[in-house]
Amino acid sequence: MSTPFPFPDQLNLLDREIRTALAGYTAPGSLYDPIRYILKNSGKRIRPLLVLLTGESLGGDRQLLLKGAMAVELLHNFTLVHDDIMDQDDLRRGQTTIHKRWDEGTAILSGDGLIGLAYRLLTENDYPNFQPVLKTFTDAVVEVCEGQALDKEFETSATVSLEDYRNMIAKKTAALIEMAVELGALMAGAERQVATGLAEFGYNIGMAFQIQDDLLDFLSTNKILGKPVGSDLLAGKKTYVTLMAQQLFNEQQLAEFEQYLLIKALDDKMLHRLQQLLHKGGIVAQGEKEVHAFFLKAEKILRQVFPTSDGEQLTVATNWILNRTY
Amino acid sequence: MSTPFPFPDQLNLLDREIRTALAGYTAPGSLYDPIRYILKNSGKRIRPLLVLLTGESLGGDRQLLLKGAMAVELLHNFTLVHDDIMDQDDLRRGQTTIHKRWDEGTAILSGDGLIGLAYRLLTENDYPNFQPVLKTFTDAVVEVCEGQALDKEFETSATVSLEDYRNMIAKKTAALIEMAVELGALMAGAERQVATGLAEFGYNIGMAFQIQDDLLDFLSTNKILGKPVGSDLLAGKKTYVTLMAQQLFNEQQLAEFEQYLLIKALDDKMLHRLQQLLHKGGIVAQGEKEVHAFFLKAEKILRQVFPTSDGEQLTVATNWILNRTY
Repeated sequence: MSTPFPFPDQLNLLDREIRTALAGYTAPGSLYDPIRYILKNSGKRIRPLLVLLTGESLGGDRQLLLKGAMAVELLHNFTLVHDDIMDQDDLRRGQTTIHKRWDEGTAILSGDGLIGLAYRLLTENDYPNFQPVLKTFTDAVVEVCEGQALDKEFETSATVSLEDYRNMIAKKTAALIEMAVELGALMAGAERQVATGLAEFGYNIGMAFQIQDDLLDFLSTNKILGKPVGSDLLAGKKTYVTLMAQQLFNEQQLAEFEQYLLIKALDDKMLHRLQQLLHKGGIVAQGEKEVHAFFLKAEKILRQVFPTSDGEQLTVATNWILNRTY
Repeated sequence: MSTPFPFPDQLNLLDREIRTALAGYTAPGSLYDPIRYILKNSGKRIRPLLVLLTGESLGGDRQLLLKGAMAVELLHNFTLVHDDIMDQDDLRRGQTTIHKRWDEGTAILSGDGLIGLAYRLLTENDYPNFQPVLKTFTDAVVEVCEGQALDKEFETSATVSLEDYRNMIAKKTAALIEMAVELGALMAGAERQVATGLAEFGYNIGMAFQIQDDLLDFLSTNKILGKPVGSDLLAGKKTYVTLMAQQLFNEQQLAEFEQYLLIKALDDKMLHRLQQLLHKGGIVAQGEKEVHAFFLKAEKILRQVFPTSDGEQLTVATNWILNRTY
């Protein structure tokens, strides 16, 4: 069961802060119009929320944390813009992607600009833990690039193992969520030990989040997903579901599954049959089991770092992510 | 007359340091192979040299300065990789560009990776002036993106003025050279006033450098340039030469000049006639005059910042840049 989004006020605050931060950036329009366009389409803003909630749980200053939160959101959007070019995706959260609405050069450059603006938010002024913050942020930039490179390499590889996949999503997805939590902690002035502990909490949330995403890509409807179900698979993308299918399906189930992978956009009826297959073959149960295992680890760390109720908001966020259906 | 390159030892040192810094980056190969490929083709390395020479003139630590120098060089190469995709250039310094040798996705990602590695060189350890260094570097990242956006916007605009052009090259070229000098000063522990003064020295060098480049694009041979003369012009690029032609040529000269702009690759004979036209129409003289004016300003600042012989190496570098023919 999905619960309602528990942080509507923080989401509004983040939207407003991002609008304000971008207000001064008008010319050149070919750079800043697409940047404003992608950031207006807010999505769930889970990464910046984690910066804010983590930092405030540790008594951090909201104005400073908002800068960190926005930097993480801008960096995340940079990855979306460039990944969408590489994957030739036309839609993102139901909205035309930048390289489709403008052109590839514009999308490359606005992604670059997003990195620059992200770093600007972090470097305008000095604050405690400045160097560790910049190091942590930068390590995540390098890791997401490595993760994306692996993801693309896997498309044309026939020998991707589940271990390879976990290493890839650790870099491509978990690294950024891990960094968001660590950044929030560091910006709140946390000691290295607390920051490292919380980083591991973020890592586990991130791993769970990506496996959930891979499952939801199959279990959602086309409408909820904002893009056609199956679009990634045609490109040969390795996801939790495709790799687990190799392990858990019998010969007949695998043959049926592989038929679906060849279809460009599944209609609702085909999608329903595919979903039944994934349930029957144990893929959904196995995936949910892995997701829960990561969440249990995350919650355990949270209780260790916050023995009192100071971590309450992070627990709420964790539970919401665990139960999300989109 | 061109003088021999005066810093062969520093160039070797930079090449070696870059090789060492990259040695640990092997996998994923689709990310790090192209990064190694572009950085091996060293070019003039003027920007990192300016970091090193500026910092050492102020008594800075060579090991720290080398990190800053490499960061600037990696950032510069990021701009080359992404610009070459946008401009659809097949050659860079006589070598096949990354998006041609691999593919566009690989080139986008290796450009992104270069930004990440550049920041990693700057953020691994703390040092004096850490926050100003990161702010200065980041401002240049944003500015080069703005400069590139303007450059692309100008291609399809018929109303680009010389002022627009100067604003564009200030961001696209001078910002990075200005930053290189400022970074060297800050990393040597310079006071804000000294760093700002030297930044202006760098700005003037940078402006001169780009106008020189625009002239050399016409005055070099195809062989020296490493790419066909005229390739940029076909795309409608606004350069010092094309804009000045509008001002200085008479009707007949302009008509002849515009004929040349339609030819994809000029042969040596045509190139020679075009060069004669640029000399006769006063474009070369006017360009050299502007270049000299920027150099005079740069040298004046240098004498103010370094009343003794401490700035000797920077004077040597400045004179070499002024007299370069490639």
